[in-house]
This record gives sequence, structure tokens and C-alpha cells, in this order.
Amino acid sequence: MSTDLHSGTESTGVLNSAITLIEQHNLQYRGYKIEDLASHCSFEEVIYLLWYQRLPGKSEVQNLEKSIGEQSSLPMELQNLINQTPRSAHPQAFLRTLVSAIALFDEQADDISAESTIRKAINLIAKVPMIIAAFERYRRGKSPINPKEQFGYAENFLYMLTGQQPNEKEGEALNQCLISYAEHELNASTFSARITAGTMADVYSAVTAALATLKGNLHGGANQKVMEMIMEIDEVAAVEEYLEKKLSKGEKIMGFGHPVYKDGDPRTLYLNKISKQLCKEKGYNNYFEISQKIANYMKEKKNLNTNVDFSTALIFYALGIPTDLYTPVFTMARTSGWIAHILEQYSQNKMIRPRASYTGPKDLAFTLLDER
Amino acid sequence: MSTDLHSGTESTGVLNSAITLIEQHNLQYRGYKIEDLASHCSFEEVIYLLWYQRLPGKSEVQNLEKSIGEQSSLPMELQNLINQTPRSAHPQAFLRTLVSAIALFDEQADDISAESTIRKAINLIAKVPMIIAAFERYRRGKSPINPKEQFGYAENFLYMLTGQQPNEKEGEALNQCLISYAEHELNASTFSARITAGTMADVYSAVTAALATLKGNLHGGANQKVMEMIMEIDEVAAVEEYLEKKLSKGEKIMGFGHPVYKDGDPRTLYLNKISKQLCKEKGYNNYFEISQKIANYMKEKKNLNTNVDFSTALIFYALGIPTDLYTPVFTMARTSGWIAHILEQYSQNKMIRPRASYTGPKDLAFTLLDER
Repeated sequence: MSTDLHSGTESTGVLNSAITLIEQHNLQYRGYKIEDLASHCSFEEVIYLLWYQRLPGKSEVQNLEKSIGEQSSLPMELQNLINQTPRSAHPQAFLRTLVSAIALFDEQADDISAESTIRKAINLIAKVPMIIAAFERYRRGKSPINPKEQFGYAENFLYMLTGQQPNEKEGEALNQCLISYAEHELNASTFSARITAGTMADVYSAVTAALATLKGNLHGGANQKVMEMIMEIDEVAAVEEYLEKKLSKGEKIMGFGHPVYKDGDPRTLYLNKISKQLCKEKGYNNYFEISQKIANYMKEKKNLNTNVDFSTALIFYALGIPTDLYTPVFTMARTSGWIAHILEQYSQNKMIRPRASYTGPKDLAFTLLDER
Repeated sequence: MSTDLHSGTESTGVLNSAITLIEQHNLQYRGYKIEDLASHCSFEEVIYLLWYQRLPGKSEVQNLEKSIGEQSSLPMELQNLINQTPRSAHPQAFLRTLVSAIALFDEQADDISAESTIRKAINLIAKVPMIIAAFERYRRGKSPINPKEQFGYAENFLYMLTGQQPNEKEGEALNQCLISYAEHELNASTFSARITAGTMADVYSAVTAALATLKGNLHGGANQKVMEMIMEIDEVAAVEEYLEKKLSKGEKIMGFGHPVYKDGDPRTLYLNKISKQLCKEKGYNNYFEISQKIANYMKEKKNLNTNVDFSTALIFYALGIPTDLYTPVFTMARTSGWIAHILEQYSQNKMIRPRASYTGPKDLAFTLLDER
């Protein structure tokens, strides 16, 4: 097994996993290519695939949708908590707190059997989009909206967020983003979920830990930073000067490069098409052109390709998702992958407790407080 | 660097750290032996040592005590949250939620500078014991008690929990337990804190993740399980039969063994004396004798020595701490060590994102939902 905890490049790993294959030009969930899943599946089908290790039949995916629907309400106490939160709170910190709080109202929270874990996982999958949407509406002084039975998962989130019924293209765009973000092997947040689950802590604990880890700018913040950059540049003609200035100061341009996908992230190909289409429809051609010019410049000057975060930034924007909700929406998708890893960790558990190499002083002479 | 994430025995580690030395017969914080620290320091002095990398002078520790005192109040919204929580909630799940919620009321929550992190760390250190004590009193239908300025950290916790002023021996017993639990290198919860901090997530996120990880029975649950075993055995004469039965069924006896301290955990020597003294004073001689007989049996039959969790179980009991609060009290102590690691991670940051070895299927043929 590998020694490298940092670069994400080693071909052998710190643990065995049968969930996701990451290779050059190639991302597969449970053996299926990401392009096929994103083009032909609902997010609910992909959840089923990740958790049950095979694609669902029609009645199986309908049952999952029904179970999600049944858990789509928030206890009054959680709604009260929303109403007592400062409107300026960080949305991911808010989501972390609410997800942790869901456990307090679940009498079987501590049961780590696979059956109970999947029941709670469905509870999480149902409530996370509701919490994000309710917080967004609360901070704008609006009442929360309940999901509709006839909508799929992606559509329902947009409906709860905006109060408008999304058109087919919008629902499908978010659906493809959710599938693309659902799972990506041992990234920091997923590793975090497995360490927590490895102590035999329950799924609410493990998802809370993963959510906390995704909050960091080096992990969850990239798509938001990409969109902020595009808005800051604002004009196609300003792209080169902006990037030259940033790069000359040694600043990192977010949304580029990946330790494994050196020749390009397989998710960007189809997401880029969606981005172009949506931007055209919504009148954001200017932003799309800026994004293309940024991508071309970085390829030419730095030989770097865009990654998934670059593509989703503009799609989320065109869907009316505020930039500070990009990480919570990423969370909404990745919760499905975290849960697949938590189930796998329970089933082959060895607690994760490595050692550090000690570099500090040794055998210092102790003195009493009075003598210091 | 080592490949072993699981056994905790490798002498080289997955990262460099200058906080804690763990060797056979030897535990040192920042180069000072645990026996000296536990016998001669207040928990507040040890917090200072862990965070500032040296023992404090008198005015330095007084300033820290003052800062903790200034943060020792709970926002009204957090008190409301306590009052809306089901009384049957898991105390560690409750603490996880409240610690996460503290961030929502801190406008500088996301600042990861060392200065801001230490200010927030003091806020956490001040509020964690208040939250535990307030929850215990709430579930018994009692009002929360505020800490007193003249008490030290350990005394104040016992006072807030029970409403009684602890005597000197009681305060000192808890003080030594808190110092003994303060830090222990890359155990699962501390590694969890570092992974979260490694994405540049804030200290509230990293402590929430660590707390979630400590909730698991393989990590935080050991001292509670030891006490439950002692109570279940109830009579000295029943020890042998109880243990024989458990061991013959292949069940694990908690509170024994340690991957590094094969010949004994250095913390048990002084803690065992405290346990004996306190049990005598409180009329729990019977429980102390049971514990000694368990320890002797396990040494004779299995060549296993007691560890820190075995020693603290009876001390916590004699101090009137309910068994389901043992993990929260462990958390109260370990928060100081987590914060030392979070500060160290920020100062030498490399994001932690290892790889897994893929063991699943590859290149499966995709079929549409209609065809499944």
C-alpha cells in the first residue's frame, strides 16, 4: 500500500475500495463510465448504483424516490433552529450544524447496521437539499417551499430554492452536475467520512465530519472561486491582463488541473456543452466567452486543462444558485458517495489511526509554575 | 514515511509532528513527561504548553484563565437549542451539534490565521464544559449553572454539572484525568481534525469533525464500557466467571492493551492511585476491588495491561459523572490536543488526499433504465 497521503497520484492506495475507478481519461462508478451515467441516468439511479453496487430496475428506483419523498420534511425544531440563525452565517457551517442536528431527532441514530444506515442515508439525502433551500429563502426573508412529488431530485431542489418550476433543460443540467459530483474516491472529505466511520461512529457523525472537511477552500471552494473570477473579469477583453497579473504574483487560478487527469477531466466534456447551452438560453454568453478564453489561455501558457469545478461554476450560476451555495450543492451530490464509502468502511472495518514522526524536543527538565 | 494507517505501531509516520512523543513506557507533551505534567500542572497550563509550545509563566496562565472566563457564556440561541433537544439524545451527538452551532454566532468563524484560531479555540475550551453540564442538567429538569471565577477549569466543570462545590481532591482528580486525555498524537479523532484543517477549513469545522470521530465505540467508548462492565459484575467473587465467559465467546474486554505501551500505559500508574483514594472516600471500595481483580486476571491470563480508559472509568464514576458523559468529558480534554494539531496543520499545510486501490469491476456495458 502507498505512502503518499498528499498528491492523490499513487496507483496503489491506503485502503481497498470497489466504488470508483480514477484513471487518465477515465472515471467509472461501480464499473460504469461517468459519461454514460451522466447522459442517461437520474441522480436517484446513481445513488442506487453507488449504495447497492448495481444499476436499479424501474421499480427499485421508484421505491428509492418514494422513500426520499417520505423523508422530505423538517422537524419543527430544525425549522426553529433555521429561524434563530444569523442571516450572515456561512451556508456550509449552517448545513454542517443542521445535518448534525438531524441525528438528535432520530431514535435509531446510533445503529450502524447496513439496513439502518441506508434508512438514515435516505433521510440525509432527502433533507440536505431542503435545508440548503430553506436557508437561502430564510436569509432573503422568504418562507420555505416543500418539494413536489412529481419532480425528480434535481428539479425539486431548484423548485425549493427559487419557487419557480424549472424547465426540462435546467433540471437535466443540475442532474448531470449532481451525478458528476456524486463520487470521487478518497478525496479529503471522503477520507474524513471513512476515518469517522472507522471508529464505528454512526452515519450522521461521518457525514457531518465529511461536510466539515468539504468546507475548506482547498476542497469545496473551487467552483465558487471560478465564478467569482469570471464575474470579476467581467469582459472578454480583460481576461489576459487579469490572468497575467494573477500568475505573475504566483496566485493559483482555480478550476484547473488534476493530479490524475493530466490530459483533461472526463467530466468537463459533457458539462461544457451544458454550460454553453444554458448560458446562451439565459443571456450569459459573455460569461461563457470569458470562461472559454480563460480555459484557452491556461492551456496555452500553463498546459493546464479545466476540471469539473470550472465547468459547474457557470452552470450553477445560470441555474440561479448563489455562489456561496456552490459548496452546499456540491455537498448535496457528494453525500451519496460519502455514504457508499461509509457502508464499505463498516463492511471491512479497520480503525484508521496512523502514527506521526516526532520532530519535537525530548526529556525536557520540568519546572514548577512558581519557578518559571 | 509509513504505510500503516491502522495498527498505530509504526515508528515512522504519515506526517511530521512536534507535539507528542509516544514510546514504550513514555508519553511526553512538547518534551515534558506526562507524570510531571499531571502531578504538578493545572489543565490550563497544559493547554498553554500544547498551543504555545512552552510552559507558561504565572501571568501567562492567568491571562489564559481570564480569557476562558470571558468566553464562559452561551448565546441565548444555543440555550434555546438545548431546550428543544429530546432528553434522550446521545450526549456526544448533542455536543457535536452545539459545537458546530457555536460557529454560526461567531462573525470571524472562517478566519484561519493563528491569532484568530487561538481566540476561537479559547471560545471552544470555555463553552464545551458548559454545554455538557447544561445538557446533563436540562435532561434532569434542572437549570444551567454558570461557572465561578475562583474555580479552576476542572473544578468548574464539576460545579456546573452537580451544583456542589467540589473538594480539593475531586478537582485535582479530574484535573489529572483531563491532562492525561489532553493529547495522544494521531489517534483517529486527531487525524480527523488534521484532514479537515488540511483543506483550510476553520477550527470549528475541524473540532466538529474530530468530535464526530470520537463518538465511535472503538475510540471514545472504552472508558464507558469499562464502567458498565464493573457495574454489571457488581461483586468481587463474580469477576472470574464473567471474564471467562466473555473471553470464551471471543468478546473484547475494554480498557486493556495499547499498540505502543506493551508493558503498560504510563498514565495508569498515577491515575490508579487517584482511583483507589477516591473510591475509598466515596464508599466505592467494592468497585475498586472489582477493577483490581479484573486487571490482575487479564494480566495473568492474557498478559494485557490496563490503559488510560480503564483508570478513568472509576474516577469519573466516583466524581458523579454519568457513564454516558464519559466520551463528552474525554472530548473536553482532547479538544486542547486537537487544537494543537490544527495549528500545526495550518502552519505546514499539505492537503491530505490519499488514493484507494480499486478492487471493483471495470468497463461494464451500460443499459438504459427501460432495458433493465
